[in-house]
Amino acid sequence: MAREGKIREWLEQHRERGIQLLEQFVRARSTQGNEKDVQQLVIEELERMNLEVDVWEPGGKELLGNPYFASSRKEFSGSPNVVGVLKGAGNGRSIILNGHVDVVPEGDLDKWEDDPYSARIVDGKMFGRGTTDMKGGNVSLLLAIQAIQALDIRLKGDIIFQSVVEEESGGAGTLATILRGYQADAALIPEPTNMKIFPKQQGSMWFRLHVKGQSAHGGTRYEGVSAIEKSMKVVESILELEKVRNERVTDPLYEKIPIPFPINLGKISGGDWPSSVCDLVVMEGRMGVSPEETMDAAKAELESWLVGLKEVDPWFEKHPVTVEWFGARWLPGSIDVEHELMKTLVVNYKRVLDEEPIIEASPWGTDGGLLTGVGGTPSIVFGPGVTEMAHFSNEYIELDKIFITAEIIALCLLDWCGVDGE
Amino acid sequence: MAREGKIREWLEQHRERGIQLLEQFVRARSTQGNEKDVQQLVIEELERMNLEVDVWEPGGKELLGNPYFASSRKEFSGSPNVVGVLKGAGNGRSIILNGHVDVVPEGDLDKWEDDPYSARIVDGKMFGRGTTDMKGGNVSLLLAIQAIQALDIRLKGDIIFQSVVEEESGGAGTLATILRGYQADAALIPEPTNMKIFPKQQGSMWFRLHVKGQSAHGGTRYEGVSAIEKSMKVVESILELEKVRNERVTDPLYEKIPIPFPINLGKISGGDWPSSVCDLVVMEGRMGVSPEETMDAAKAELESWLVGLKEVDPWFEKHPVTVEWFGARWLPGSIDVEHELMKTLVVNYKRVLDEEPIIEASPWGTDGGLLTGVGGTPSIVFGPGVTEMAHFSNEYIELDKIFITAEIIALCLLDWCGVDGE
Repeated sequence: MAREGKIREWLEQHRERGIQLLEQFVRARSTQGNEKDVQQLVIEELERMNLEVDVWEPGGKELLGNPYFASSRKEFSGSPNVVGVLKGAGNGRSIILNGHVDVVPEGDLDKWEDDPYSARIVDGKMFGRGTTDMKGGNVSLLLAIQAIQALDIRLKGDIIFQSVVEEESGGAGTLATILRGYQADAALIPEPTNMKIFPKQQGSMWFRLHVKGQSAHGGTRYEGVSAIEKSMKVVESILELEKVRNERVTDPLYEKIPIPFPINLGKISGGDWPSSVCDLVVMEGRMGVSPEETMDAAKAELESWLVGLKEVDPWFEKHPVTVEWFGARWLPGSIDVEHELMKTLVVNYKRVLDEEPIIEASPWGTDGGLLTGVGGTPSIVFGPGVTEMAHFSNEYIELDKIFITAEIIALCLLDWCGVDGE
Repeated sequence: MAREGKIREWLEQHRERGIQLLEQFVRARSTQGNEKDVQQLVIEELERMNLEVDVWEPGGKELLGNPYFASSRKEFSGSPNVVGVLKGAGNGRSIILNGHVDVVPEGDLDKWEDDPYSARIVDGKMFGRGTTDMKGGNVSLLLAIQAIQALDIRLKGDIIFQSVVEEESGGAGTLATILRGYQADAALIPEPTNMKIFPKQQGSMWFRLHVKGQSAHGGTRYEGVSAIEKSMKVVESILELEKVRNERVTDPLYEKIPIPFPINLGKISGGDWPSSVCDLVVMEGRMGVSPEETMDAAKAELESWLVGLKEVDPWFEKHPVTVEWFGARWLPGSIDVEHELMKTLVVNYKRVLDEEPIIEASPWGTDGGLLTGVGGTPSIVFGPGVTEMAHFSNEYIELDKIFITAEIIALCLLDWCGVDGE
């Protein structure tokens, strides 16, 4: 039997084991700060696989002081990173297989039909927070490595399997792997792409705007200046900037995307009394960042654009809108569509599924931005999860796709890393 | 000496006593729920004056179930109303002299240069919460009655002095006096008008709007509908309605007022995550109501105007903006400018100050709306306080104006109620 057939057969024979592993991962409820249990499961699995296992809690001056560090916390005890290395024989290309174990909060429990951590299977789908984003993808990675191990061959290049924390909060886990020295010739991240291939990922960062007015009694509101009315001009101006930024996009990967790099104003609040003129409105939003620009350039463009508001309304001359960059941040990521790993992935996708893969740009960032931009490891995002269900209630994954993805990845690993003695 | 001279002389001789009384009133810190101490001082003063004193805590089904009842609370124990009646000899016109003792919260303490309840006097001004709004006016009323008592004459008509609670929260105190049966041929309320005469007072009521959107991830914001963007259309529409409503105003009393009946949007809030599309914005505001219209007509106009938003944007067809009327409410008030009490007030203002008074419409409501609209007692608002300082930090009153106002009111009482035997 050819290697391809053996891999598929092994995966079929170990389907129950893979599902069990995912079930255990999901039930470990690994929201931010609670990743220890799931990482313990990962450690045990990597030890069973005889990988060299490296476990550490991120932290220290180098991490916290790094310009790319973004997190809502500064203390990561109880939130270890885990890396398992399968050493190659040498003279092959290395690869990082990166997946995060942190999951976003379950949100409004009333919107869940079941316990968010039930890992219940209905009609070939497993339900639960983290199934799709992205523990299903992590299981694909582990199965792919195990299937190769079952072939009784040795790869030339190293496989560096990374089970990281903090992706959902800005990537401090992956940043810590880079600072620890992990690097490779390429990386693959099985975030939920519906098995589309994402060579480019939108970066993003959060901002907070302060729009000022002047207070007065509502009965004589003409004696004040409404920050709510001024905010309308700011919202309009932001929409205009979004338009200008997106008109520049020519890459065909964005052809089908209505707004490749949106600027989303997600929160607004202002005023403290119905019958007073509102003198301050605070808005918070997310700015999409193109892989063709730096975060700093995007920041500078928004900031200088808002300075231009004084041309729209002289009020802003003496009362400029202030911009604060805060909270989460994801670097954009990009790999050449002609990169060898892209080619290998497309070839093996076709081999397994007998159809052309969809190649698109992702509307959100992943740790691929850090791996590429900071770690110097070009990254592709490709995974089995359901994009639309990430961060939503009743999150689920189609179990079949976990195994198909594992098969494609296993074949890629053979091609990319090379087989010793061949 | 003519009565006029005697009144002025008495007021000059009792200046210190008047200032002391105001000082005591201010230091009693009578925010909502804490009016008992100041009312005790009022009771003692009225008893010294030998008025018939009526003290009761508002409450009961009749009050709470009344369609004009508006308050943030339903329980008024510890917040008594006080009424003192000076019975006339008969065959004269009666008058209600109404003042509230509740004061608004002191707000941001950092904005006060002194303790908000210091009652400190600097350059002829007494500072403190409630000096202007409206304990200074209440002292003018008491001094006016006392000055007349000092003349040793008897009036024909009754003087009904009302020291009420709850004006700042919607008038439940004055409503309770009406339900207790107090009524008169006219009323005078010394709210802070800068000694302008206000025959008309703007009514107002609070509303809350819900503007709906549809949630989505900020990176694919085109899959959602931003309630913040939809709110911009609502704000514009409200400004348009305000314009339409104010274009109707022809009364010369409003000639100098840029927007006689403003609609103020004072609060806005929406969204809970910078990188999610905001699916709900809540706005709260205050709608000014003309004395020429009913509260219900004003409500109906806003409600039907917002239904019209679907012509502006089809989104609102299936997702109409909802309107909720809540919280405080002040009826508009109006008295004929040719009313006899108006004439008397103008004549005596000129007699004391040797100049024409300014007659205007007020940009806010007072308990005069209830006295007129519910109690059938036409009301004028005229008082010594500084309009601009009401509800503000470092609130103050010019002490001289308290005594000038008292003199004008005393002369009015003589003319209005008539002197027995003349």
